[in-house]
Amino acid sequence: MSDNASAPTTPTPLTLLGLGAMGTALARTWLAAGHPLTVWNRSPGRSTELALDGARVAGTAAEAVAASPLVVTCLLDDASVREALADADLTGKDLVDLTTSTPAESRTRAAWAAERGARFLDGGIMAVPPMVGAPDAGGYILYSGPRALFDEHHEVLAVPAAARYVGEDSGLAALYDVALLSAMTAMFAGARHAFALVEGAGVDEKEFGALVAGWLTAMAPATAGFGAAPSAEDATSPAVVEAGDAALLRTAQEQGVDTALLIASAGSVTGI
Amino acid sequence: MSDNASAPTTPTPLTLLGLGAMGTALARTWLAAGHPLTVWNRSPGRSTELALDGARVAGTAAEAVAASPLVVTCLLDDASVREALADADLTGKDLVDLTTSTPAESRTRAAWAAERGARFLDGGIMAVPPMVGAPDAGGYILYSGPRALFDEHHEVLAVPAAARYVGEDSGLAALYDVALLSAMTAMFAGARHAFALVEGAGVDEKEFGALVAGWLTAMAPATAGFGAAPSAEDATSPAVVEAGDAALLRTAQEQGVDTALLIASAGSVTGI
Repeated sequence: MSDNASAPTTPTPLTLLGLGAMGTALARTWLAAGHPLTVWNRSPGRSTELALDGARVAGTAAEAVAASPLVVTCLLDDASVREALADADLTGKDLVDLTTSTPAESRTRAAWAAERGARFLDGGIMAVPPMVGAPDAGGYILYSGPRALFDEHHEVLAVPAAARYVGEDSGLAALYDVALLSAMTAMFAGARHAFALVEGAGVDEKEFGALVAGWLTAMAPATAGFGAAPSAEDATSPAVVEAGDAALLRTAQEQGVDTALLIASAGSVTGI
Repeated sequence: MSDNASAPTTPTPLTLLGLGAMGTALARTWLAAGHPLTVWNRSPGRSTELALDGARVAGTAAEAVAASPLVVTCLLDDASVREALADADLTGKDLVDLTTSTPAESRTRAAWAAERGARFLDGGIMAVPPMVGAPDAGGYILYSGPRALFDEHHEVLAVPAAARYVGEDSGLAALYDVALLSAMTAMFAGARHAFALVEGAGVDEKEFGALVAGWLTAMAPATAGFGAAPSAEDATSPAVVEAGDAALLRTAQEQGVDTALLIASAGSVTGI
């Protein structure tokens, strides 16, 4: 089923809390790789399906945590992690939190885990569910926290997607994760804006979608250099940037599309 | 010099008004392809350099227009086009306007050109200057207006970048152009937001830039389908979208980065 499907060098029992679309995708890869997996979800949801694939379904989060030394959480938000683990005994556990959270939340969760006797790694998943278990799709998971803990679990953590360590500070994975997700969110909003502009103009949706995706794919590499100021030679003149922004705004007004995204993006038109 | 450098099948005399970074890049490809080129710019700027490459430099826009039956404009904005051509005799000319403008402005400019005895094609350049004359870079120019006029000039128009015809309505090229530029602008703003978030966190700028560019490149293809509502199975649950948006907003607040872009982009977080 998964591209990662093969007998693992070391079958590693682990527990996964959270069976949303992402949690379910993760679970499938660990099962396919032969790791003994215990799962729990607040609502029964996809548990039955995973049980057929060999997962042990725990009745409570505390019971799921008790089942394995390695516990992975993939829940809605940081508050859901705290709530799910409230009654669990974390003593001696290794907790890996893949829930999207802020850097400060991740650091707080790391301290909270330490107080309860657990070692803690924070993770940020750079993939949508279909990219999990598909090594060529370009997805990966960012990790931060103790390097030794990451190294110890690297093999099992690398099953769903490439594991990329970014530093000792627990908050770093969340910082990278949210930064990349923020960039993607603005790109997606920009693409929706583009579709909104052409609505009603009789444009073929598929053909236009291919243009949008192709153009964004062609221009995305330029963002690699946005951390540094452009050289005087490469910098677009302020007059060109201003005229470009103005044309985009006037077009949105002509087409009756909200301008908030463009106003917040102003100054990012370059050289065209 | 240019990848397009080769003797043209038919040397076509043409005039180019506007020698900004983009106009200069266009001019170089036509000269390299052997087309007799007359250029004009409001300020002398890059004229001297192009003269050395064989361009004839006109002293006024009217003189430049008089020099060739085919006149291309690549100016700051639509008002600059009207102003530059105010004293020119357009009778019998074919006017191709590559200036970024709105759909309504392009339609007005088409009617204005017709009143003055010229045929009119509107164009929108989907490329930054370094992509002009580099056929493998993925750039192209969108055209709208009379199909026969496009076909007649296709060969010379295809010299700087692939020429793509989108329809008879003069405003269509501008509509597509601005829609794609708007999507890019939001993506670029998102990338700048990502860099702003990690500022001061001791993150390596080059390494982080590679992550941003790689992630946006990996996710851009998903935008092809944004014109259609996602299937019930593919749609991200509202709770996940809301939790994702909230984590991005809280992180921006923690890091002291403006939230306007995220607020305008809200609802575009998917499945992560």
